[in-house]
Amino acid sequence: MSSERPGAGPASLATGLACPVPFTDTDRVLLGHGSGGTMTADLIARCFLPAFRNEYLARLDDQAVLPAAGGRLAFTTDAYVVTPLFFPGGDIGTLAVNGTVNDLAMAGARPLYLSAAFILEEGFPLGDLHRLVASARAAAERAGVLVVTGDTKVVERGKADGCFVVTSGLGVVEHAAAISSDRARPGDLVVLSGPIAAHGAAIMAARADLELDTPVVSDTAPLHRLVAAMLATGADLRCLRDPTRGGLATALNELADRSGVGIVLDERAIPVEEPVRGLLELLGLDPLYVANEGRLVAVVAARDADRLVARMREHPEGRQACIVGEVVADEDRLVVLETAVGGRRIVDRLAGDQLPRIC
Amino acid sequence: MSSERPGAGPASLATGLACPVPFTDTDRVLLGHGSGGTMTADLIARCFLPAFRNEYLARLDDQAVLPAAGGRLAFTTDAYVVTPLFFPGGDIGTLAVNGTVNDLAMAGARPLYLSAAFILEEGFPLGDLHRLVASARAAAERAGVLVVTGDTKVVERGKADGCFVVTSGLGVVEHAAAISSDRARPGDLVVLSGPIAAHGAAIMAARADLELDTPVVSDTAPLHRLVAAMLATGADLRCLRDPTRGGLATALNELADRSGVGIVLDERAIPVEEPVRGLLELLGLDPLYVANEGRLVAVVAARDADRLVARMREHPEGRQACIVGEVVADEDRLVVLETAVGGRRIVDRLAGDQLPRIC
Repeated sequence: MSSERPGAGPASLATGLACPVPFTDTDRVLLGHGSGGTMTADLIARCFLPAFRNEYLARLDDQAVLPAAGGRLAFTTDAYVVTPLFFPGGDIGTLAVNGTVNDLAMAGARPLYLSAAFILEEGFPLGDLHRLVASARAAAERAGVLVVTGDTKVVERGKADGCFVVTSGLGVVEHAAAISSDRARPGDLVVLSGPIAAHGAAIMAARADLELDTPVVSDTAPLHRLVAAMLATGADLRCLRDPTRGGLATALNELADRSGVGIVLDERAIPVEEPVRGLLELLGLDPLYVANEGRLVAVVAARDADRLVARMREHPEGRQACIVGEVVADEDRLVVLETAVGGRRIVDRLAGDQLPRIC
Repeated sequence: MSSERPGAGPASLATGLACPVPFTDTDRVLLGHGSGGTMTADLIARCFLPAFRNEYLARLDDQAVLPAAGGRLAFTTDAYVVTPLFFPGGDIGTLAVNGTVNDLAMAGARPLYLSAAFILEEGFPLGDLHRLVASARAAAERAGVLVVTGDTKVVERGKADGCFVVTSGLGVVEHAAAISSDRARPGDLVVLSGPIAAHGAAIMAARADLELDTPVVSDTAPLHRLVAAMLATGADLRCLRDPTRGGLATALNELADRSGVGIVLDERAIPVEEPVRGLLELLGLDPLYVANEGRLVAVVAARDADRLVARMREHPEGRQACIVGEVVADEDRLVVLETAVGGRRIVDRLAGDQLPRIC
């Protein structure tokens, strides 16, 4: 599909792209930017190519041809419809890169390449597009991945919501560990990489336009290097998840369900930063169900847990890693929270939608 | 991202999926279907898993882990925003699979795996979703590819247009041929696989709700087997394109531009089926700019052209293959049409958008 990356020819590739003509405040996305014709070529030459520049993308073909990868492949896709597009700690561009990198990381894969497809609403400010593409580029650089292919479509005003981004990711699995959501066993321990609920809280604060004494900032971050460090310990890692939509509660319910076990959580052990906790109390939201974008939860054999946590704490994304619970035998596959006041409550899956369009 | 494929647990995997509960006419997409919670799990279990069922998808992880591929990798992505979603000859599901398969095929790759991300508008009929997913499944089966990972997001009513689909594709390049848009050389010939403009014409007819004596049907089809047959001839294939958005004119302008050559087309040699020609005349559209979804254009060394065309004609997708033009030396990189009445006109790139949301 998409005879889209027609490029602007070798001449402009050589000259124009290094210093593209910036968009003005009044430049808007027009239907013609999705035509596959000269306006599409102009958008690619001025916005996407200079941001993501690499040898694969620069070929301007409808696909990237990449070197053979020496191992099993990890492949993932995610659609991003977050609103607002820009929020404290990131934007849809950051999120689209980190989220897809993290889905690869959760298989213990080394992320290599991303694709990026944009669905733009007619009238969307090109300056905003440029900003979020710049964020995606910065996130890709930080994560060490290349955006090697892409697509842009434009729909009429009122038929989308500014900008949706869909990223797919390709990585290589270079370890032999069997990480899977069905491998949790009674006696295993549950390890969390850091405080929860910051991403969802930041989005809600941005939506409500709340003025907070201490700003709440999204935790979006790439986690593949943390996972590589975890794998290098040799710990028997059973399951890995990034608790995004639906939060920690949903991620653990999935693991319990798939593995046929129960999980008991210690509420006092689960870190939630004070500003996040305060904001969520104000909004009446349970941090266990609020989305995270730079956190992971792991199930690990009990004998390896302390060693794993110690190693995670040496890593920037795991400084507050801690053991938060235990896997137990339970035919009903329940996730149970032992509360700070000594009670027990069942932490069910999210039924409906607590926080729509959080990612 | 997306703790999305929570699944319905081993029990329902074993029983419910083979015979999922059908949707009723009144079932609609709700925001909760994008929550990552139980409603998302239900949608996956009832709609996506039974359609695309395979060992990779069935793991319900946030990524698919795939066997190592023995060669260079081809990677592509495309967003589909076609309207209407259902049209003569196909629907957005068919298109999303074939289009991505074809982008892989244009690198001479063997398509292996697809991802599929759905952005759904609240209120979209679940029966329609089921139909287009069934079409995508049928197209994937026909093309011999597996849909191994996916994502679903839901946005509020009025924030999208029913259903957008983004497919990414992964294939393996098993030949040594150097196919690239910058390899056309003066003296090469331009080969077309069949009649043009049917897809765009079918979409326009569906939009206008035209009653035609002879129905115009989209040409959507997977082209990788045709390409494999072409490669097997040993012909020196220089460039391959599927002339989708922007049509044959845009595809050839891209090749001319990237290769630094001119192209001269023979209008009489370019096949357009009569009903398509009639409809486009009625609408005042030039078939050279109208989208195709099951056609390819190749640039090939002149000495190999006849042999290539003969082989293409043995293939279902190439029965009407023909030579339509020649590559010439031209510093201005123009595509020129020698018209049926003996004139010459420049076939420029599409400037704006002739046919928005054609794919």
